[in-house]
Amino acid sequence: MDIEKILKEKLEIIEKAMDHYLPKEKNYQDIIFESMRYSIFAGGKRLRPILMMAACEFVNGDIDDVIPFACAMEMIHCYSLIHDDLPAMDDDDYRRGKLTNHKVYGDAIAILAGDGLLNYAYELMIKSSLDKNENNKKIIAMNEIASSAGIHGMIGGQVADLISENKSIDEKTLDFIHKNKTGALIISSIRTGAILGGATEKELNALSEYATNIGLGFQITDDILDIIGDEEKIGKKVGSDIQNNKATYPVLYGLDESMKKVQDLFNQSVESLKSFGQKSDFFINLADYLVKRDY
Amino acid sequence: MDIEKILKEKLEIIEKAMDHYLPKEKNYQDIIFESMRYSIFAGGKRLRPILMMAACEFVNGDIDDVIPFACAMEMIHCYSLIHDDLPAMDDDDYRRGKLTNHKVYGDAIAILAGDGLLNYAYELMIKSSLDKNENNKKIIAMNEIASSAGIHGMIGGQVADLISENKSIDEKTLDFIHKNKTGALIISSIRTGAILGGATEKELNALSEYATNIGLGFQITDDILDIIGDEEKIGKKVGSDIQNNKATYPVLYGLDESMKKVQDLFNQSVESLKSFGQKSDFFINLADYLVKRDY
Repeated sequence: MDIEKILKEKLEIIEKAMDHYLPKEKNYQDIIFESMRYSIFAGGKRLRPILMMAACEFVNGDIDDVIPFACAMEMIHCYSLIHDDLPAMDDDDYRRGKLTNHKVYGDAIAILAGDGLLNYAYELMIKSSLDKNENNKKIIAMNEIASSAGIHGMIGGQVADLISENKSIDEKTLDFIHKNKTGALIISSIRTGAILGGATEKELNALSEYATNIGLGFQITDDILDIIGDEEKIGKKVGSDIQNNKATYPVLYGLDESMKKVQDLFNQSVESLKSFGQKSDFFINLADYLVKRDY
Repeated sequence: MDIEKILKEKLEIIEKAMDHYLPKEKNYQDIIFESMRYSIFAGGKRLRPILMMAACEFVNGDIDDVIPFACAMEMIHCYSLIHDDLPAMDDDDYRRGKLTNHKVYGDAIAILAGDGLLNYAYELMIKSSLDKNENNKKIIAMNEIASSAGIHGMIGGQVADLISENKSIDEKTLDFIHKNKTGALIISSIRTGAILGGATEKELNALSEYATNIGLGFQITDDILDIIGDEEKIGKKVGSDIQNNKATYPVLYGLDESMKKVQDLFNQSVESLKSFGQKSDFFINLADYLVKRDY
């Protein structure tokens, strides 16, 4: 048996699938796509995915079912190496003859690229499980959470926020950051609860709209409190956004405009649920509470 | 409506569930359990899980279905804060009036605690989906991968390895590190492939035994190559284990004993598959290849 030839054949299947699965589109956070690809394609024996494929063949299974899981496994392995190489861990400059991720992209992006690969591994497996389980509420809910937490959601927003520091950014970029960095998890929390509870499409749509509005309102309130809040109540230093030259709603548009925006968002969030009558009480009271909080 | 009272009631449900789900047993890696608990219980409004519960109630769903997902969501939120606070990111010393995770446990444990929480969130959701889908191969496979990658698997091994640096450790600790840090993903790769391919119990057991042996053999070979390997072929500096005072098999038992151990493990791996005849060819050739590699 020419084991090297067989290993090479299997490796090539993995390389192609990896290239297929890993995003490469242009967007505000595309530096993390580049950074993830850098480490994934910096070599490696692909031992784990090859073992997975071989075990499937050993039992006469269908190799196509395994490919997303095999890629997910390699992503998990790869994220662990990226984090392991960080200065805070093993502090390695080279791996497989190439510069380690943080030596090319910096520590912050390397941390996020590792987080991104770990989360993306689950996104991939969950999506692949979704195809044939369209009625399984729990897989649909997992998919909701996984997508919102990853490189096209929260992590994506963190990356865009990070690379926008000390830069003047436009409204679109700020919207992207808000929508993803904090908005994504808040929206998917509400959607996940509704999905698991067996929501109708009308209910899910109304709750999603409510979530979008209070998510943004919550974020702008946070940013306002970072300017006018009481350090004791908030439990951390205020003024850090201005100090770090972070673009936030009140920094870009001023306090008055920001407070007006929060009130508008509150009104819209109430509007989206009002047709449901009394059962909206909690959400409407909560929106009011979140808007008026001072911590 | 007394919104503060309702929020407090829901928050208490989450606190209890979190305490129930988060591990606290004594083991080699228990510092990460402590570190994860530190940040999870350092306060927080629990806004996301509360929204999830409320959305489920809004559609008259069963709140018990939501609890694991609500905790998972809070773990994802919490991991993102731990990583965000790191010196490489926002470099914050305080959050909610308490020292941030890395200020208490150091940067390395804080990175791993974040990774651990992210992975554990998926473990929790996948396990909760497994209960009612016992015949769903893909969920079983996800469960296999998630468990092996997390704080009771790879991350657990990384933590034990980290805290063992510059210490003389015993055989049991070294076994724990090997079994988890590298072994876990190799074993779950093979098991996942077999599960997805529809393995019989006999096949799954034999493949698991094979995987356990080559996993350890692979690790010891790596450690041997870190002493006698060729830097050009390996693509990174050799000798780092001795330099970093890392306990490895060859450091503890010497090169001869280590090479003998690798050969024994190879023999055992072949043994576990030999009853399957020709279809074991790939795995047996691979074991031989891995044992003899010089990179």
